[in-house]
Amino acid sequence: MSPPFIANADVSPVNAASPPVIGRVASVYSDVQSHRIDQPLPFPSVLKNPFKIVDGLPSSSAGNPGEIAKLFPCLFAQPSALLLPNYSSSVQVNKNLKIGVVLSGGQAPGGHNVISGLFDYLQDHAKGSTLYGFKGGPAGIMKCKYVELTAEFIYPYHNQGGFDMICSGRDKIETPEQFKQAEETAQKLDLDGLVVIGGDDSNTNACLLAENFRSKNLRTRVIGCPKTIDGDLKCNEVPTSFGFDTACKIYAEMIGNVMVDARSTGKYYHFVRLMGRAASHITLECALQTHPNITIIGEEVAAKKLTLKNVTNYIVDVISKRFELGYNYGVILIPEGLIDFIPEVQQLIAELNEILAHDIIDEDGLWKKKLKTQSYHLFEFFPQAIQEQLLLERDPHGNVQVAKIETEKMLIQMVETELEKRRQEGAYNGGQFKGQSHFFGYEGRCGLPTNFDSTYCYALGYTAGALLQGGKTGLISSVGNLAAPVEEWTAGGTALTSLMDVERRHGKFKPVIKKAMVELDGEPFKKFALLRDEWAIENCYISPGPIQFVGPASNVINHTLLLELGAKA
Amino acid sequence: MSPPFIANADVSPVNAASPPVIGRVASVYSDVQSHRIDQPLPFPSVLKNPFKIVDGLPSSSAGNPGEIAKLFPCLFAQPSALLLPNYSSSVQVNKNLKIGVVLSGGQAPGGHNVISGLFDYLQDHAKGSTLYGFKGGPAGIMKCKYVELTAEFIYPYHNQGGFDMICSGRDKIETPEQFKQAEETAQKLDLDGLVVIGGDDSNTNACLLAENFRSKNLRTRVIGCPKTIDGDLKCNEVPTSFGFDTACKIYAEMIGNVMVDARSTGKYYHFVRLMGRAASHITLECALQTHPNITIIGEEVAAKKLTLKNVTNYIVDVISKRFELGYNYGVILIPEGLIDFIPEVQQLIAELNEILAHDIIDEDGLWKKKLKTQSYHLFEFFPQAIQEQLLLERDPHGNVQVAKIETEKMLIQMVETELEKRRQEGAYNGGQFKGQSHFFGYEGRCGLPTNFDSTYCYALGYTAGALLQGGKTGLISSVGNLAAPVEEWTAGGTALTSLMDVERRHGKFKPVIKKAMVELDGEPFKKFALLRDEWAIENCYISPGPIQFVGPASNVINHTLLLELGAKA
Repeated sequence: MSPPFIANADVSPVNAASPPVIGRVASVYSDVQSHRIDQPLPFPSVLKNPFKIVDGLPSSSAGNPGEIAKLFPCLFAQPSALLLPNYSSSVQVNKNLKIGVVLSGGQAPGGHNVISGLFDYLQDHAKGSTLYGFKGGPAGIMKCKYVELTAEFIYPYHNQGGFDMICSGRDKIETPEQFKQAEETAQKLDLDGLVVIGGDDSNTNACLLAENFRSKNLRTRVIGCPKTIDGDLKCNEVPTSFGFDTACKIYAEMIGNVMVDARSTGKYYHFVRLMGRAASHITLECALQTHPNITIIGEEVAAKKLTLKNVTNYIVDVISKRFELGYNYGVILIPEGLIDFIPEVQQLIAELNEILAHDIIDEDGLWKKKLKTQSYHLFEFFPQAIQEQLLLERDPHGNVQVAKIETEKMLIQMVETELEKRRQEGAYNGGQFKGQSHFFGYEGRCGLPTNFDSTYCYALGYTAGALLQGGKTGLISSVGNLAAPVEEWTAGGTALTSLMDVERRHGKFKPVIKKAMVELDGEPFKKFALLRDEWAIENCYISPGPIQFVGPASNVINHTLLLELGAKA
Repeated sequence: MSPPFIANADVSPVNAASPPVIGRVASVYSDVQSHRIDQPLPFPSVLKNPFKIVDGLPSSSAGNPGEIAKLFPCLFAQPSALLLPNYSSSVQVNKNLKIGVVLSGGQAPGGHNVISGLFDYLQDHAKGSTLYGFKGGPAGIMKCKYVELTAEFIYPYHNQGGFDMICSGRDKIETPEQFKQAEETAQKLDLDGLVVIGGDDSNTNACLLAENFRSKNLRTRVIGCPKTIDGDLKCNEVPTSFGFDTACKIYAEMIGNVMVDARSTGKYYHFVRLMGRAASHITLECALQTHPNITIIGEEVAAKKLTLKNVTNYIVDVISKRFELGYNYGVILIPEGLIDFIPEVQQLIAELNEILAHDIIDEDGLWKKKLKTQSYHLFEFFPQAIQEQLLLERDPHGNVQVAKIETEKMLIQMVETELEKRRQEGAYNGGQFKGQSHFFGYEGRCGLPTNFDSTYCYALGYTAGALLQGGKTGLISSVGNLAAPVEEWTAGGTALTSLMDVERRHGKFKPVIKKAMVELDGEPFKKFALLRDEWAIENCYISPGPIQFVGPASNVINHTLLLELGAKA
């Protein structure tokens, strides 16, 4: 390090030669972290007492059952499993198990508790078992990189955010060689089971792995767990993915603060872009929690085939109306993936990719003549900075990088331009428009999990252990009845194949768990649609405040889940 | 609003014709907000029981007492006042008072509680008094725009963030005409007193107003209250400004989350710019709360006359060292005002302003020859986007807008360039550097105040009431002994002139309350300087988590205050 910054120049870097510390040390925790570690969690009754696993009816698939049956000959049509009280039996099956666990994909608050729950299941029901944590995601399985998880190792992560206990990764087990590597690891560690904690892709992968192990007559069973802050992995039996509750509450806290600031200052429009590229669940949930003036839901934009001009006009119309009512401020929520939902943008980008691959972008703009009329007008409609981004930011394949576009800043510029145009035309004579941009993303992926996520995750992990011990494979751990008190939650497993459909890729059918998008006839969207006009012109802002872990405000569940479960939120 | 977004096209905008709702309605609060409203606050004993006001010794000024004495002939040398128990007296002076209160400048959590405390003082000690809230800051005084504050009006704002009860503004009462307007308002409302809640400038203004009223023999007295999230209004008798505690904890929560994300993902360097243009207290406090790998403190950069190249090299050195230790990730804190602290940047900007005013910026860059050598090299050292910003973003006077530069993005680009250079030279063969930028600002100004800020503000307001009733003017409400239990806190007032020095502006002496900058020999910086090398290469991250309002983690005070008070933090 440079001398100017070293306070005591003779102090050599502390422990420079020591190896990196592995794992966390609870002694350096904040007060809140420390308090969370030992905070007891409520626990579903069915998991507290002796239970038996009961199979349901044979399952089908979300679509194309014929193709799914071909892709999963061993596992297709598996029934769901439900844990039920078994008071007659007090005998514990106490065979030692060897289980692996892996975190796959982006972080979500609560992942550590899934592992805690799984570990405790093994302690409670299969004492002497071994739990291996594969390091750095699925690559850890393929490379057989793991750590043996002990009570001491796990303890500091209890109720803590992040995935750093064993870290995560985005690799997939796809090729025959990779499946072979996974088999080798399973055999080397003599695994009875593997728990894959991940999103839609990772759970699809988990099912392929389960099928592969079963087809090879390996005894390693595979159970998935539903993880993603985006909230787009869910179905009837898996009412929500973990992390969504915490992430939304963290974003909603910030949005609520910005709203109070907007109202206090009276001169800014805050454009808040929220994480969630594929589905707009986070944006919708944050809207239900905070009541912003404007919320753009990607799925609605796509369904109504709206253009960027439509979206801009809608925002400008609300701003004009608000100015008439005496408000020159507001808060606007935008999903990260907004422009992916706009058909005309997709078209422009496809044309640009083609042109960029084959033509020279001349300074005089003659290249633009190659654009179709609609795309040409859209390109010209973009602010200059966005035009440059579209032409300059390319991925390694030379394609336009849509993900790098700061949609919130783009919209601010478009709104500015449109307001100015209307002002020139005499159609707007309001105050000066000042936009402030925000992106809330990384702040929400690794926060301390809420009481809901902590409890839900622990139950998911505990249930996964039960399913593995019960000989199940190819199921996703399913904890239900979530609107009821925790004691009444249900536990079981759902056939992963029942969540699947196929997609045609490179001439082949690939199995996919379809992302659960915001449904325009679903209760959360309907509630939002009913209220948004009031929110637009009045100031119905709600400030959810920081997540509380104790006290009366600590056990609120997110609106989306409650509304989908039919409860009043 | 555009039809595509209206769910029920026949629903007309709700209450479009009604006037805007004035004030908040607690019925639309979140659970946390609702719970906060009625949460009782601890209260200093001296304010609970009968007290008397005792004067201290005559005061001087922070500098140039001769000039301050000339500027404040009526008020200079006023003693401080201290509230002491007065068990002999149980008689209450119960004359009705007419008091005004104003919020001045940027928002800070707790402002509403200052008003609550003031209101309750009047209820407790001068029943039948009237409290006027001037609307929209000092402009409300000048235009005599106010609302009469009643218990019902104030109630929903109890322990709530924001300044929206009466809103704030950045106007100043400066010219003779403006002072005249203030006098007219004071006379029209027959004010006994005025409480000005604001930062250094606003309190200077409060003192000028007090002097003016006194010199004109008006009976309106003026008391200030120390507000600013920046933490740069403080002295021995005013240990901290309100809002700093809450804002830092909100930012530290986000930083802690990003740290856990960095460690879990293992591939990003997060550059976090934090609000605080003048002083780096917020950045320093957040560092003490979270232990980032790198923290840049503006005051140190200025004291050591560091260049941008020094700062960049320091960051790159740490990144290189960390890569050797196996870490290709980290978290870096940067104060908003960083580049204002760098002498060479100031010089370049002065030269640019001169050139932009008189010359043409030719595309071939011939204009650059007008820059001095050092400035030329600095300009060339800047990434292209920053060069463009420097040339294009100008304020109404044609000057470069330093405030608009996104320092965190600038540093990311500079670090990228330096790492690439070192890689070319063979001096760095580490992994790919990926920077993520964040700006935490507006999220922190209007959060729900912490227990500390709630309690401190209420005591400040209550004390301000006592000082006004005691006939005091030109004092700033001062609540001390803050490291002790709340019951033992002291209350009193400090002569505003004792905080002042003069600055020469336009050939005249102007009184100023000097901003309290981070002191390099102060305890907070010393603690940071002792530990930062360890934080740089090890991962000592602490995640403070969300602010808690109940339970064991809810009463932690910020490190800066505790260290400055000599307590162990």
